Amino acid sequence: MPHASGYAAATPKAPLAPFDFERREPGDRDVQIEIKFCGICHSDIHQVRDEWFQGVFPMVPGHEIAGVVKSVGSAVTKFKVGDHVGIGCFVDSCRTCIECKQGEEQFCQVKLVQTYNDRDKEGQPTYGGYSDHIVVDQDYVLRIPANLNLDEAAPLMCAGITLWSPLKHWQAGPGKKVAVIGLGGLGHMGVKLAHALGAEVTVLSQSLKKQDDGKRLGADHFYATNDPETFTKLAGQFDLILNTVSAADDWNRLMTLLKRDGTMVVVGAPEHPVPVSAFSMIVGRKSLAGSMIGSIKETQEMLDFCGEHNIASDIEKISIADVNDAYERVLKSDVRYRFVIDLATLKGGEKAAA
Amino acid sequence: MPHASGYAAATPKAPLAPFDFERREPGDRDVQIEIKFCGICHSDIHQVRDEWFQGVFPMVPGHEIAGVVKSVGSAVTKFKVGDHVGIGCFVDSCRTCIECKQGEEQFCQVKLVQTYNDRDKEGQPTYGGYSDHIVVDQDYVLRIPANLNLDEAAPLMCAGITLWSPLKHWQAGPGKKVAVIGLGGLGHMGVKLAHALGAEVTVLSQSLKKQDDGKRLGADHFYATNDPETFTKLAGQFDLILNTVSAADDWNRLMTLLKRDGTMVVVGAPEHPVPVSAFSMIVGRKSLAGSMIGSIKETQEMLDFCGEHNIASDIEKISIADVNDAYERVLKSDVRYRFVIDLATLKGGEKAAA
Repeated sequence: MPHASGYAAATPKAPLAPFDFERREPGDRDVQIEIKFCGICHSDIHQVRDEWFQGVFPMVPGHEIAGVVKSVGSAVTKFKVGDHVGIGCFVDSCRTCIECKQGEEQFCQVKLVQTYNDRDKEGQPTYGGYSDHIVVDQDYVLRIPANLNLDEAAPLMCAGITLWSPLKHWQAGPGKKVAVIGLGGLGHMGVKLAHALGAEVTVLSQSLKKQDDGKRLGADHFYATNDPETFTKLAGQFDLILNTVSAADDWNRLMTLLKRDGTMVVVGAPEHPVPVSAFSMIVGRKSLAGSMIGSIKETQEMLDFCGEHNIASDIEKISIADVNDAYERVLKSDVRYRFVIDLATLKGGEKAAA
Repeated sequence: MPHASGYAAATPKAPLAPFDFERREPGDRDVQIEIKFCGICHSDIHQVRDEWFQGVFPMVPGHEIAGVVKSVGSAVTKFKVGDHVGIGCFVDSCRTCIECKQGEEQFCQVKLVQTYNDRDKEGQPTYGGYSDHIVVDQDYVLRIPANLNLDEAAPLMCAGITLWSPLKHWQAGPGKKVAVIGLGGLGHMGVKLAHALGAEVTVLSQSLKKQDDGKRLGADHFYATNDPETFTKLAGQFDLILNTVSAADDWNRLMTLLKRDGTMVVVGAPEHPVPVSAFSMIVGRKSLAGSMIGSIKETQEMLDFCGEHNIASDIEKISIADVNDAYERVLKSDVRYRFVIDLATLKGGEKAAA
């Protein structure tokens, strides 16, 4: 079995440290990928700290993977050595349930195999992208357009698709007014994608601190939620609100900003239930909805769209040895707008640690 | 000005008692309607008891009005003397805002004039259907099909349209699985209408007490929410859930019954905000939405559909003198399924009270 190197949390809440492990022997349908870059998603921190559910440790996080095909199995038809590819939040699913058959395998009812912190169909732990390579069935590998830089493309695999899927599902485009709540790793992708889709984009951020950035990323308007006048000015304005804020938030107040028949889609999940007033929805026939990453098909469409429109993430590239510090900065929202680990630093890091 | 007789609450929380008042002088575009029957809606009780907002007293409740045209103004083209007509929750709107122009005047942003407990554009109080007649602009009058009994048709004006509008908006019909939560005044109309639209209908009631009724009304299946197995059996089953229960309820648990992309529509408004978990919506891309009565156009479509399918409300007819007792029974859910006041008893009642 191929030897792999990476960074893992040995136990819940432990800091990440160098870790050696085995990947599965590549099969006929597998693609072996040399990981070049991996984004840091806020959910990596939740999982490493065991905040959502009991995790599988040691845990190698990372589901915003961009790399280059190193070898392919004999039955692989979709990829060849040297291709630029990506891996997102899952690496397998049951393939037989109605969700999988309808191409919505992110909602697989039987066995969605997450890229890390999960067990595959054979019961073996899955390890994520904070590592030198990964072995994945070709059906769960995405093609990254040649004109995108791999480092900036990595965050598309989770942050990108998380915003793309609801924008497409709720038909953002010309003539539609879209608000993005929160300008972080998710929000900044929402602004870029909604703008490229032709929607009129408004950012609602806590303050006006990131206003210049917001405009540069493609926002037509920028308002501060800490200014009560924002809610007067923007009342009843939006067809679609994408709420990326996972800190508990006043959903009822945000829903006053929707037009009749508008929808607020929650993509950042607060830890605790949020109080919702029936009247927030009844008056104006409004909807509150959720969205979760996207299917392989949608993810490929998003990547192709990003290639055509030359869209990728704004990133801060780091050495893997700095990953624990980066986590602390993510928790303080001190990143513009996504940390991406340069896996070339893994070897140096291991040497330094040796 | 035409003299009117009815029952009113003189002050907040006062019992209803005989009350004489003036209606406006009918204008060119007005229809004067002799009220034959008026349904008792749960919201009448909330308003008489001043539980929602500060009301206009004395208050003559009633917005499920069925009657016969007594006279028409010179410019009235839609109705003639003797027509069977109905009045629902509102009797005017601004007619110029985007909602009114798009035929969604129930969401009028400027001035929706409610049938009672409101003031008209001249600032005069509006009085509802617990009275002998009413004067309404022809554009806010509905035609009741000749084959429907006026007493059973009265509740269509609020309970009927409240369920019809979301059924149509979220496309209930053949191949769709619809659940109706709560089998009361609203719920029983939901079952009849969803069934007639061709959907597969399931009732979820607290217990199996009303099971026979549910099946008779058109439900294909009937389950008790007090049986935990219900939630195992029905997990992920429904395209659409119509939640008519206004007592605070576990929305998160109900949403586990939705299919991917399913919607739960709230039409019974709990007094306090309800805790909603983001994960209830994110997993399966589910929506939680609200719906509020319907437009004049939709209401007429619903009435025409009810005429074609011979659908009306199951009612208990009462004398107006018994209205206060009926309110107590509504609060105990002790009515199958709507109280309707026979306004012919008004004269007798007044004599008895005199």
